[in-house]
Amino acid sequence: MRNNNRKNDEMREVKVTKNYIVHPEGSVLIEFGNTKVICNATIEEKIPRWLKGTGSGWITAEYSMLPRATHTRIQRESIKGKLSGRTMEIQRLIGRALRAAIDLEKLGERTIMIDCDVIQADGGTRTASITGAYLALELAVERLIDEGKLKEIPIKSKVAAISVGKVRNEMLLDLEYEEDSKADVDMNIVMNDKGEFIELQGTGEEATFTHSELLKFIELSKNAFDKLFSL
Amino acid sequence: MRNNNRKNDEMREVKVTKNYIVHPEGSVLIEFGNTKVICNATIEEKIPRWLKGTGSGWITAEYSMLPRATHTRIQRESIKGKLSGRTMEIQRLIGRALRAAIDLEKLGERTIMIDCDVIQADGGTRTASITGAYLALELAVERLIDEGKLKEIPIKSKVAAISVGKVRNEMLLDLEYEEDSKADVDMNIVMNDKGEFIELQGTGEEATFTHSELLKFIELSKNAFDKLFSL
Amino acid sequence: MRNNNRKNDEMREVKVTKNYIVHPEGSVLIEFGNTKVICNATIEEKIPRWLKGTGSGWITAEYSMLPRATHTRIQRESIKGKLSGRTMEIQRLIGRALRAAIDLEKLGERTIMIDCDVIQADGGTRTASITGAYLALELAVERLIDEGKLKEIPIKSKVAAISVGKVRNEMLLDLEYEEDSKADVDMNIVMNDKGEFIELQGTGEEATFTHSELLKFIELSKNAFDKLFSL
Amino acid sequence: MRNNNRKNDEMREVKVTKNYIVHPEGSVLIEFGNTKVICNATIEEKIPRWLKGTGSGWITAEYSMLPRATHTRIQRESIKGKLSGRTMEIQRLIGRALRAAIDLEKLGERTIMIDCDVIQADGGTRTASITGAYLALELAVERLIDEGKLKEIPIKSKVAAISVGKVRNEMLLDLEYEEDSKADVDMNIVMNDKGEFIELQGTGEEATFTHSELLKFIELSKNAFDKLFSL
Amino acid sequence: MRNNNRKNDEMREVKVTKNYIVHPEGSVLIEFGNTKVICNATIEEKIPRWLKGTGSGWITAEYSMLPRATHTRIQRESIKGKLSGRTMEIQRLIGRALRAAIDLEKLGERTIMIDCDVIQADGGTRTASITGAYLALELAVERLIDEGKLKEIPIKSKVAAISVGKVRNEMLLDLEYEEDSKADVDMNIVMNDKGEFIELQGTGEEATFTHSELLKFIELSKNAFDKLFSL
Amino acid sequence: MRNNNRKNDEMREVKVTKNYIVHPEGSVLIEFGNTKVICNATIEEKIPRWLKGTGSGWITAEYSMLPRATHTRIQRESIKGKLSGRTMEIQRLIGRALRAAIDLEKLGERTIMIDCDVIQADGGTRTASITGAYLALELAVERLIDEGKLKEIPIKSKVAAISVGKVRNEMLLDLEYEEDSKADVDMNIVMNDKGEFIELQGTGEEATFTHSELLKFIELSKNAFDKLFSL
Repeated sequence: MRNNNRKNDEMREVKVTKNYIVHPEGSVLIEFGNTKVICNATIEEKIPRWLKGTGSGWITAEYSMLPRATHTRIQRESIKGKLSGRTMEIQRLIGRALRAAIDLEKLGERTIMIDCDVIQADGGTRTASITGAYLALELAVERLIDEGKLKEIPIKSKVAAISVGKVRNEMLLDLEYEEDSKADVDMNIVMNDKGEFIELQGTGEEATFTHSELLKFIELSKNAFDKLFSL
Repeated sequence: MRNNNRKNDEMREVKVTKNYIVHPEGSVLIEFGNTKVICNATIEEKIPRWLKGTGSGWITAEYSMLPRATHTRIQRESIKGKLSGRTMEIQRLIGRALRAAIDLEKLGERTIMIDCDVIQADGGTRTASITGAYLALELAVERLIDEGKLKEIPIKSKVAAISVGKVRNEMLLDLEYEEDSKADVDMNIVMNDKGEFIELQGTGEEATFTHSELLKFIELSKNAFDKLFSL
Repeated sequence: MRNNNRKNDEMREVKVTKNYIVHPEGSVLIEFGNTKVICNATIEEKIPRWLKGTGSGWITAEYSMLPRATHTRIQRESIKGKLSGRTMEIQRLIGRALRAAIDLEKLGERTIMIDCDVIQADGGTRTASITGAYLALELAVERLIDEGKLKEIPIKSKVAAISVGKVRNEMLLDLEYEEDSKADVDMNIVMNDKGEFIELQGTGEEATFTHSELLKFIELSKNAFDKLFSL
Repeated sequence: MRNNNRKNDEMREVKVTKNYIVHPEGSVLIEFGNTKVICNATIEEKIPRWLKGTGSGWITAEYSMLPRATHTRIQRESIKGKLSGRTMEIQRLIGRALRAAIDLEKLGERTIMIDCDVIQADGGTRTASITGAYLALELAVERLIDEGKLKEIPIKSKVAAISVGKVRNEMLLDLEYEEDSKADVDMNIVMNDKGEFIELQGTGEEATFTHSELLKFIELSKNAFDKLFSL
Repeated sequence: MRNNNRKNDEMREVKVTKNYIVHPEGSVLIEFGNTKVICNATIEEKIPRWLKGTGSGWITAEYSMLPRATHTRIQRESIKGKLSGRTMEIQRLIGRALRAAIDLEKLGERTIMIDCDVIQADGGTRTASITGAYLALELAVERLIDEGKLKEIPIKSKVAAISVGKVRNEMLLDLEYEEDSKADVDMNIVMNDKGEFIELQGTGEEATFTHSELLKFIELSKNAFDKLFSL
Repeated sequence: MRNNNRKNDEMREVKVTKNYIVHPEGSVLIEFGNTKVICNATIEEKIPRWLKGTGSGWITAEYSMLPRATHTRIQRESIKGKLSGRTMEIQRLIGRALRAAIDLEKLGERTIMIDCDVIQADGGTRTASITGAYLALELAVERLIDEGKLKEIPIKSKVAAISVGKVRNEMLLDLEYEEDSKADVDMNIVMNDKGEFIELQGTGEEATFTHSELLKFIELSKNAFDKLFSL
């Protein structure tokens, strides 16, 4: 039985607090159950060097966890002097997911940087981050429209993400930490509100999954996307 | 005139949310006006190498700001690969302040590590951090008592901190960012609830202060300590 | 038209040179067309600290490219002083893929480390690396059997990997660099010789893919796996 | 009893050797008893980016110790790859103290960088450094005047520093290492020759100090400043 | 007796494979017996800042070993985050040797960077690297001539290098690893094809050598240079 | 004409101040003309891991320059976060030279670490460092004898070093900075007091030298060694 009598195909409660922090151009506190992520969007009127002169903008993301977001304390990456592979992997994923949501040429030669800082972790931090980051990005884009810096909304589609996994032969939606740590297969699915895939990452850590399991995982995720796109 | 009609000797509103994050042994969200700091205490049943065999415990602290806690985004120290001098200075100050609050021998051979993460900054982040860190430390100590790991409370006195400064010849209590950035003299005072100094740091950045101004700064701080120790 | 009149569902020529370097416990030079990777396996009679006492072994991987494996020179990561996110992502992927091939308990408390060094790059370096790394791992395991250190073969299944992608609305197998750089969707598939998925990573960089395209990508990869598992 | 029959309110012998190193624009070897610091001033005709166009100059400082300046060898920070918190704290303090001595606008758009390298340490390295750094700065300013690059002396006041502390209930001036390592309270005072404070840092490491002790510390420091400003 | 009945004054077999890697402007695989080094030359139409405006070009080199080029695996310098002293020493030596071969003014304001990557090591990696790097440099210069970017060949003389050493009182030419690890004296000699020295580095690691031994070492090296310059 | 009417085969004045710094087990200030190096020896009763159990001791060295030892300021390596290749090369050379002076087995399982810190540079810092480091090492060894920790003197021979070079076709002994910066060929010679070579490093930076020039360089150095071994 899952915590709180949750069904296998049931998502945890999702809460969104907009304008959570006052300074950013877009700010959202997103909660997937006990997982809480602050997503802050910063607009910078400059672009990476390799984009200069192309007329195109850029979206990128950074991800971090407070040392005590987790059950046992993890050392700060600023003290270690470098990012872990896990952090790099996640922030590259968030960035790619958001760039698929936006027409970068319509954005113009500016960068929107999204900071996702996990203040409390209970599984699904990368999917909560992508979903919250998209909402912070929307707020930042609205600000650009309001300030007259953009005439046209550059958003092509909404973006959200959810995890599915196989735990003791049960197919589960939206794994919390206790489930995730026991999962044989773990899949993160990023979709847009047209039902298209943006990213699909399935991993059998010391296990495997079949073609028919892949199809079931995808089926299972649909419940979540309906809910997430109604936010 | 100060924001919100605040008087020169008036502190901003202080709010404390205990048990803000679920995992730490002690957790507090402290707010000095718009400055918001999450202070999480972690108990580790080990001590630094140089203390081994002395019977003494240890208290230490780390401090960081979310990149967008401030008006303009600041780069992550994990990306720069090192801590700034400012960060080092502040976390060393917090650690010293907390060690003065505790009888380290009564704590026993364990470490309490306090993480102070500023999620929103508006001046006074180091004084809010010290004050919140002390409260998180108290919660962690209570947990040690509750779990029977400590028989006696090792706290010698409560600790709090406040800033005072001189801005355009006005002596002000508890500076917010806009005031702090224009201050000629800036002083951070850490005291215990017996009215003794734990740390006093006065700086005339490109300015100076006289003996009588020093006495006025100390006088001004008293209002704040009465309020802070009643938390 | 693809280079060398290659068909959309046709893999490049694959060459494997076993025992390419004399010192490693397993060594393979693998070539997918012009992509050339040296895969060297090292057996170490020790395991990561967190595995000690569990009876389980460990498999891990490192990935790097010579600075001039590519059209234009890339700076060495040893000079930058840190690994790029791309390198981290790839070596984590290789390690996971190999661990799914081996029964780590049968391996015993030892580590097999696979170094994948790309000496010439033309697309598909991560899939060539996984495939070559598996073969180097096999050689290292054979050595353990020959030396009497292992009684039973710990390999659960063979592992190989291939890329598929969508380029200008064509679905292509085994993309070379020129194709990869223009791809809208890029998918890396890692399978075992039982036809099960070990890892599936599909990315629509600034694009998306549908459910039916996902199924076509998987179909397309089957040609490659038949060929790769016959090596 | 203090070493060499020193009285509690007596400073150690101070020696200043001007032009100690031949290359710098200002160079001083300063000795507070057995503490010896080489202070070298470098004039650079450039300023930090954030000052460009303001007409203002800049003063900054760096501090280091030879590995064997101390009783037991300390590892080089160049080998550790980063500055310690202690080093950062001290060099920020020296820089602030010197900037209070100079009218930065009169200095013009140039930087004076002071390097303080402790070749032998016996307590009070930060106060000897500040005092010596000021003297090296004076020499560098004289050179600017002599070379006709400055018409007007930009020095607002002389700067010096001294430490005071409480050791076994004795209030002591100018602590040497053996005293400092046993001190309950340690205070560094930076003043100008008008009797104004530039910086005041009092620390009760695991101890506290009262208002009346603060006043006694300040009183005690006066003997030293008379002596230091006569150099 | 040496391996393969080699005489004391006999060099190992030398093999050169030109155009080994397809992308670089010059590429050579050089083998001194079992020592194998890939030497890749990259032409960059820019020069270090301190050379700008002088009309002079630049030649520089980088050196690295695959982790398993050696009997036991060595950790990657990218993981350690810094180059070892040995690597720095060798790549500085290669760079100096190559600059002596070229008239940098005739090269014009461009840089040729040579990457020497040891894929298999058996002693003499620095001498094989210098010799191979020179050959890769020649290929890159030929390309500049062919493309009309250079009118005149800027090569002043050919360059090659060889090691000699004293092992158990035998004077040996071209030491392999087993010999090198037992050598009392080790000397690397870099010469041009006019019989002039470019670099001479003799080291008695915990031993010494006499004037007459120095002359014998030099004599011994001549056999090798005749062979190397005929490549 | 050389500065101070120095002849081509004449060394600069050499001064040695023993026990220059009070804390080290051996301390020497050595001056070759205007080049001044503090050489401090530290005895540590431990050895590198790879020597444990062999009964052998170890000698090693570190080298650094104060930022303003030179005409223009050089950035601290602690700020850059890494040692330069030049520093690594020099400190490895000093270490090798000193190990040739000592019977490491007679030294016993301890390390002597020599720190060479250049406080003023005018050419020949590496040869002054080797010569001064040897003298500091002698003092440390005497201390071990005096304290009864060693029964027998482990020194095999004295060690000293000198530079020679070719400047505008003149062969010069003991180059100062102005000469060194114009030298075509630069050679550092390390010898013992038996007239044997410990290290010989000749470099034709963008130039070459002949066999007969090599012999002249060696001849020229003899004047210096007679003087240096009489210290």
